[in-house]
Amino acid sequence: MKALVLFSGGVDSTTCLAMAIEKYGKENVLALSVGYGQKHSKELEAAEKIAAYYEVARKTLDLSLIFDGSDCSLLKNTDEEIPKESYDEQLKKTGGKPVSTYVPFRNGLFLSAAASVALSHGCEEIYYGAHSDDAAGSAYPDCSEEFNNAVNQAIFLGSGKQLRVNAPFIGMTKAQVVATGLMMKVPYQMTWSCYEGSEKPCGVCGTCRDRIAAFAANGIEDPLMEVEA
Amino acid sequence: MKALVLFSGGVDSTTCLAMAIEKYGKENVLALSVGYGQKHSKELEAAEKIAAYYEVARKTLDLSLIFDGSDCSLLKNTDEEIPKESYDEQLKKTGGKPVSTYVPFRNGLFLSAAASVALSHGCEEIYYGAHSDDAAGSAYPDCSEEFNNAVNQAIFLGSGKQLRVNAPFIGMTKAQVVATGLMMKVPYQMTWSCYEGSEKPCGVCGTCRDRIAAFAANGIEDPLMEVEA
Repeated sequence: MKALVLFSGGVDSTTCLAMAIEKYGKENVLALSVGYGQKHSKELEAAEKIAAYYEVARKTLDLSLIFDGSDCSLLKNTDEEIPKESYDEQLKKTGGKPVSTYVPFRNGLFLSAAASVALSHGCEEIYYGAHSDDAAGSAYPDCSEEFNNAVNQAIFLGSGKQLRVNAPFIGMTKAQVVATGLMMKVPYQMTWSCYEGSEKPCGVCGTCRDRIAAFAANGIEDPLMEVEA
Repeated sequence: MKALVLFSGGVDSTTCLAMAIEKYGKENVLALSVGYGQKHSKELEAAEKIAAYYEVARKTLDLSLIFDGSDCSLLKNTDEEIPKESYDEQLKKTGGKPVSTYVPFRNGLFLSAAASVALSHGCEEIYYGAHSDDAAGSAYPDCSEEFNNAVNQAIFLGSGKQLRVNAPFIGMTKAQVVATGLMMKVPYQMTWSCYEGSEKPCGVCGTCRDRIAAFAANGIEDPLMEVEA
């Protein structure tokens, strides 16, 4: 294996997967999907189907026990409701602190697990679909540029300079990620982003709102919302 | 909970545990022990007994599946033999690259998991027993000072500045860690460090050598070797 893709089955990581395959070939790419005790498994099911579509090896990890003391609203061990407001509205309520859908240090944990798996399989690169809209202000501190720089540095140094994080969308908006993926014919109709696990996306949670806007900025409807119409 | 101690049951993390308890009181300290598929469970058994001795809450995580593709000689899924030479001798063979007992990005993964658990339990500090001898030259890149700085920064920023890593021994040698612990009456006879899982420490693996030397520098014999005599 040459490259590991941190692969949730959402828009950004699926676009990353397509890029990694283009660079290294499907036989050299390992897709890593991580369960963390989320309320539903729609995302992981999407990841499985997309990995099969692209014919890449996939590994899954269940790290849900790590979060068993958390009250994060995305987790199935809490009764917290997932907010239906925009991130700006949520941040007004939290006073700028992380929002209720912040999973404690999730991205740091996922990237570290990805580093251990990547080194165990001889990969030299981790593809990571972070982009400039991810942090949503201070809603998700483990998506900020400063955090990304620090964790990338930690992985490079802690691996004995054998492994790098490649975050090709770091200076892009989500709309630009979608534009990139549309050129590569990424099967966005197979992806899943919604925080809720219903049959169709709710259309009003933070991540649905962001995704719909990203497709709209490219002059098209989110293919999952299309199906719903 | 106020503080989480990354707690292996060895000399350094047990000394850390004693310090955290001194600062916060035993009821505010959570000891976290992580299994990673090591060849034996002596260390984890030691951790369990020491946590009981100090009467602190303890959580264990099994992250061994993360390393199932690795050929690291510490892991039970490999036939690799654990080297009996000093780290200097091993590094001559690897040409300065990580040694065979380097578990891929282990410390990055453990600290990230500790961050997720700490935030899930409301802790504001992670105690981490890193010291200046840990890296053993370039044997363990995930113990270098540069790595520690980067990962600490990642945890501080990625937690929304809610969590800090406290590495009280970062400028100390292992001999100084032992000196600190002896003053605090740390029960070193309960700890375990040896990479082998025999009834008594082998005395010749890298970690046995380091530990024996640290006690010797304090003018005493390693209590585990004493028992053996």
